[in-house]
Amino acid sequence: MPQPAPSPRTRARRLHDKATYDRAVIDAILDAMPVAHVGHIVDGFPVVTPTLQWREGDRIYWHGSSASRMQKRASGAQVCLTVTLLDGMVLARSGLEHSVNYRSVMVFGEADLVEGAEAKEAHLRRMMEQMFPGRWEALRPITAQELKATRILSLPLSEASAKISAGPPSDPPEDRPWPVWAGVIPIRLTVGEPEPASDLAPGLLTPEHARDYRIR
Amino acid sequence: MPQPAPSPRTRARRLHDKATYDRAVIDAILDAMPVAHVGHIVDGFPVVTPTLQWREGDRIYWHGSSASRMQKRASGAQVCLTVTLLDGMVLARSGLEHSVNYRSVMVFGEADLVEGAEAKEAHLRRMMEQMFPGRWEALRPITAQELKATRILSLPLSEASAKISAGPPSDPPEDRPWPVWAGVIPIRLTVGEPEPASDLAPGLLTPEHARDYRIR
Repeated sequence: MPQPAPSPRTRARRLHDKATYDRAVIDAILDAMPVAHVGHIVDGFPVVTPTLQWREGDRIYWHGSSASRMQKRASGAQVCLTVTLLDGMVLARSGLEHSVNYRSVMVFGEADLVEGAEAKEAHLRRMMEQMFPGRWEALRPITAQELKATRILSLPLSEASAKISAGPPSDPPEDRPWPVWAGVIPIRLTVGEPEPASDLAPGLLTPEHARDYRIR
Repeated sequence: MPQPAPSPRTRARRLHDKATYDRAVIDAILDAMPVAHVGHIVDGFPVVTPTLQWREGDRIYWHGSSASRMQKRASGAQVCLTVTLLDGMVLARSGLEHSVNYRSVMVFGEADLVEGAEAKEAHLRRMMEQMFPGRWEALRPITAQELKATRILSLPLSEASAKISAGPPSDPPEDRPWPVWAGVIPIRLTVGEPEPASDLAPGLLTPEHARDYRIR
């Protein structure tokens, strides 16, 4: 697992940004949270689009329709892909020290387009298998037309950084006796009971891959 | 409440993007989720940064340190601010029909810097009061130096759009009898029990504004 070196873009500019380039930390955040926000430049303006991401080794992948504006522009273009988990609200004794506990990864680079039906199918299969093990084989098989309609983009993790903010408020000593409650309100993504479609084929039970799905 | 008109940037390009320009829908999503991803252009490259946002009437606000790279660049610059709530994973009979239930808002525009200590304090107070009613008055009062160190930016909601994807999978009729489970795995942000700081001043109980904090 190659460790990315800080680039001018990933290097944290402020001490308390708590940035790390540790790939184990970066990978854990990417693997925990499927939603990314992809930033690209369209006609000179920044555009930030939510999308699903998945990791395969040293690269991060996302996909969409060949018809979508975001997908068309992103190939070969510079993008910034950011993944964030909100872990809590931090209530301090002063307004300035209020903050948020979070885990976040930013990946910069030039997006590569995955070419070829076979390669595309292999990536989609891996995406599905990571999220819902065993599901791909049970699905109605993907068609050549569907593969054609799908664009898959990827970025290497060579220019990636993670930031983590955790723990209680860090008021300076002189503020700590102030008579106001301080602490953390924890927040997490929770997964509910799977809701079967109303028109399921008869005899289908909720599979393990749906029952056990979790966001960490 | 003025309704934004679709601009070339906010106009949805694809039918199933389910875009709306209804301000009631836009406002409800912004008010539900405090985390935004702000996209801006730094040295010609897109940069996407997570930040807290709050709404005051027809504008969206965010803030940060005067020292931060993002804050310095964003003033007067074109930005895209995107807020997304992940509501569920949608499992269909084919790979292509798998999708995500979500609510998302994109706001485009030129960021305005809030000038003046008095105006800054008024906005910070409103942010705090929206999230934690009654808390601002109880805090150690903000200082002139702290206000100086805080930059607040804002965007009008005149160029904003919302997208909502909800409900069960939408497999075409010919796929529905396929013998694979289909349905929705609901996901939501849940708020846990407030965790008091270990060095609280004596006699402080967890206030209502911490106990009742929710993300909708």
